[in-house]
Amino acid sequence: MPETAVADAATATARAASAPTTREDRAGWLEALAAALDDDRAELVRLGNEETHLSVARLDGEVTRTAAQLRFFAGVIREGAYLEAVVESPDPSLIPPRPDLRRILRPLGLVAVYAASNFPFAFSVLGNDTASALAAGCPVIVKAHPGHPLLSRRTAALAARILPSGWFALVEGMDAGTELVRHPLVRAAGFTGSTRGGRALFDLAVSRPDPIPFYGELGSINPVVVTRAAAMERADAIGTGLVASFTRDAGQYCTKPGLVFVPSGGGVEDAVRNALGEAPSSRQLTDGMTEAFADGVAAFSARPSVEVVRGNAADGASAPTVVLVDADTFLADPAPFLAECFGPVTVLVRYDDPQLPALVAALEPSLTAAMHRGMAEDVTALAAALTGVAGRLLFDGWPTGVAIGWAQHHGGGWPSTTASIHTSVGATALRRWLTPIAYQDAPQAVLPPELRDGNPLRIPRRDS
Amino acid sequence: MPETAVADAATATARAASAPTTREDRAGWLEALAAALDDDRAELVRLGNEETHLSVARLDGEVTRTAAQLRFFAGVIREGAYLEAVVESPDPSLIPPRPDLRRILRPLGLVAVYAASNFPFAFSVLGNDTASALAAGCPVIVKAHPGHPLLSRRTAALAARILPSGWFALVEGMDAGTELVRHPLVRAAGFTGSTRGGRALFDLAVSRPDPIPFYGELGSINPVVVTRAAAMERADAIGTGLVASFTRDAGQYCTKPGLVFVPSGGGVEDAVRNALGEAPSSRQLTDGMTEAFADGVAAFSARPSVEVVRGNAADGASAPTVVLVDADTFLADPAPFLAECFGPVTVLVRYDDPQLPALVAALEPSLTAAMHRGMAEDVTALAAALTGVAGRLLFDGWPTGVAIGWAQHHGGGWPSTTASIHTSVGATALRRWLTPIAYQDAPQAVLPPELRDGNPLRIPRRDS
Repeated sequence: MPETAVADAATATARAASAPTTREDRAGWLEALAAALDDDRAELVRLGNEETHLSVARLDGEVTRTAAQLRFFAGVIREGAYLEAVVESPDPSLIPPRPDLRRILRPLGLVAVYAASNFPFAFSVLGNDTASALAAGCPVIVKAHPGHPLLSRRTAALAARILPSGWFALVEGMDAGTELVRHPLVRAAGFTGSTRGGRALFDLAVSRPDPIPFYGELGSINPVVVTRAAAMERADAIGTGLVASFTRDAGQYCTKPGLVFVPSGGGVEDAVRNALGEAPSSRQLTDGMTEAFADGVAAFSARPSVEVVRGNAADGASAPTVVLVDADTFLADPAPFLAECFGPVTVLVRYDDPQLPALVAALEPSLTAAMHRGMAEDVTALAAALTGVAGRLLFDGWPTGVAIGWAQHHGGGWPSTTASIHTSVGATALRRWLTPIAYQDAPQAVLPPELRDGNPLRIPRRDS
Repeated sequence: MPETAVADAATATARAASAPTTREDRAGWLEALAAALDDDRAELVRLGNEETHLSVARLDGEVTRTAAQLRFFAGVIREGAYLEAVVESPDPSLIPPRPDLRRILRPLGLVAVYAASNFPFAFSVLGNDTASALAAGCPVIVKAHPGHPLLSRRTAALAARILPSGWFALVEGMDAGTELVRHPLVRAAGFTGSTRGGRALFDLAVSRPDPIPFYGELGSINPVVVTRAAAMERADAIGTGLVASFTRDAGQYCTKPGLVFVPSGGGVEDAVRNALGEAPSSRQLTDGMTEAFADGVAAFSARPSVEVVRGNAADGASAPTVVLVDADTFLADPAPFLAECFGPVTVLVRYDDPQLPALVAALEPSLTAAMHRGMAEDVTALAAALTGVAGRLLFDGWPTGVAIGWAQHHGGGWPSTTASIHTSVGATALRRWLTPIAYQDAPQAVLPPELRDGNPLRIPRRDS
């Protein structure tokens, strides 16, 4: 077999992974990476701006987010609850009898990370997947996104400066991407991107001789329901908020609200039309995305009983666009309106009140679902109906903006992810890269310190 | 589409799953199922004995285990820690700002369970997968194992008497099995059985238009290392213990020790040969398994440099068998010795001390790995090497017998499972059937009680 970049990197990382690290070691690495991002912020933001067309302000905020995420995971592993340590004393009276059993999570091994286009920092080379994998104790090989190659290499150089040899590598190109997910040493993969690209890599991961977990965060339509009571109270604010959310950074968010159910005649549609005239436009990440967006909007325009309203577009930018349909049109064939169109477009579906349950029932799983409700309205039934379709269910707000914390869940059923019970953001993102081990009647010396008698490292632990 | 048993059952269970249940409701069901197993024990054991050839004593103990497991899961859900509830208060100073976020696990939906042959109670109709899925709040359709159809139907009738309509169904036959894993309403599947059968169903699960998690517990070789110091201290006890473990119930355990590294000339081999003459024999579960076992032993006999020693066999029973090879023979082509041979056989590999690291390095992942060590021996390096290949690592004992508890892990890397980070036994088996949801800025009334302000149900919860 010829030596490839993937094979080289995998060999090097496998060697690194065999040397144990402590949580404190890795927390230190994560903090050093965060500090280096802060130090090199000006140059990194400039490179990102040149390659992605995202604004300097947005990218500057994204560097802050990315550094905060690295520091957050440092805190999570220092605390130690993520290890889910359990120590159970023997009980010979049980059937079957219970020996001395101690459970903990250990790192899975080498992780492959597929970087996203739309977050060149936060979901890219040193983003959520890399940060959580390193925190978990897994070395990482990142497949760079072709949308920002110079920034990817620059960020990788920063990582190489700080991380011990063998803990990190960057590879580029589609062939390297498919080789990586099939490499025998790779134990799990994280991906952020399109449903089509993610499914292709997922199919490779699960058809290996030894299938591996593939955590793909894919396309998401992020439905929003505006109730009639909400529209009566604040149609203007809702319309303005929606336009700001779906046009933010050219609508290039996996959490963009892409489908909005609005009460017919409730004023939200007018508010959206008004706000659209004022909405800024910006260039998309790549020319390919700009073309795909134009094709997507043209496909909406070509459908019967569909109105397409475009805002203004600066030179080279994609125009903010609203697609309007009646509930009957949507319900007759929901599929075209449920597919993500990446860019500044959203679909408004006008409903008469009795139609709302059928609209909600037609939804597919998404990363988020949102509702805007009346101040005193009982929305328990609607919330229950939306629970099944969303990883995050939010109220009176917009889904763009994904906070980092212990309670966050950034996931959802297919087609929004390939691995519905896992998250790619928040403390529990770590668990994707960990696997349990139970020690039975083990001598103290071979146990990880976190499982020893007396809990010498004082981590949160279940002792019984 | 013609109505099939699977389609009927799926429709009924989907209706059931849409009605919310409380943890207390479900704990009550589990306890009632356990009580019914106890009540009907005599008839159930008799049926099981007729269909499986497992002894009455063994089956009686297995009913006790199965009832204990149902009660254990009732306790786990009553406590509530399994929900992993987190309540985080807003913090607008963060980048990105944090809203009110509350995370909990919710049931995934309809679960398909594929029953095993070798545990007609504990890993079958009301076994670990069904008990944990019901506990999690998921209705279940069980595909019966053809090895014990009457017992399966009898147990299903017991379940139908106790569970509310739509929460449980039994289907039979290979066609029903493949239809089940592909049914659009099925959200996850649990399987216990052979690597070949499990992989075939796994392939169907992941090639669906909407892939679903498939938790297969497959074949496992469960390697054992006997150190020279251990052999010097207690070769006889180790040899006797090994024979008792691998011949127990005709060796039909996923945790049977199938590969044992023994120091050459250390006395363990002689002890095993002696104990083999005294070992009982019993009929295997099915005629097909008896034939497959004979074929497997014949294949060992046909290999060069392999000695096959058979114990005595009662009429129709499979003879307890030991396969002996030198480390050189094993290392030249480990594959035939790493494949599970279901039945009362184990492979003894004689090693000279410098060969042990290479032997351990040749192992594939297994549900368990065990070592027998000297009383004062430092085994940290050997334990570290075995950590990567075992879901449960045990010391100075035998892997058969899987305790039920909070610290148990019954899993492992491929080929011992299809889903390496999950367990099929123990408290965390519940997690396979749960998916997180995060509520953002939700009104109290729509939140599950477990996430409300003040923690009214007093479950273990992370509040920050």
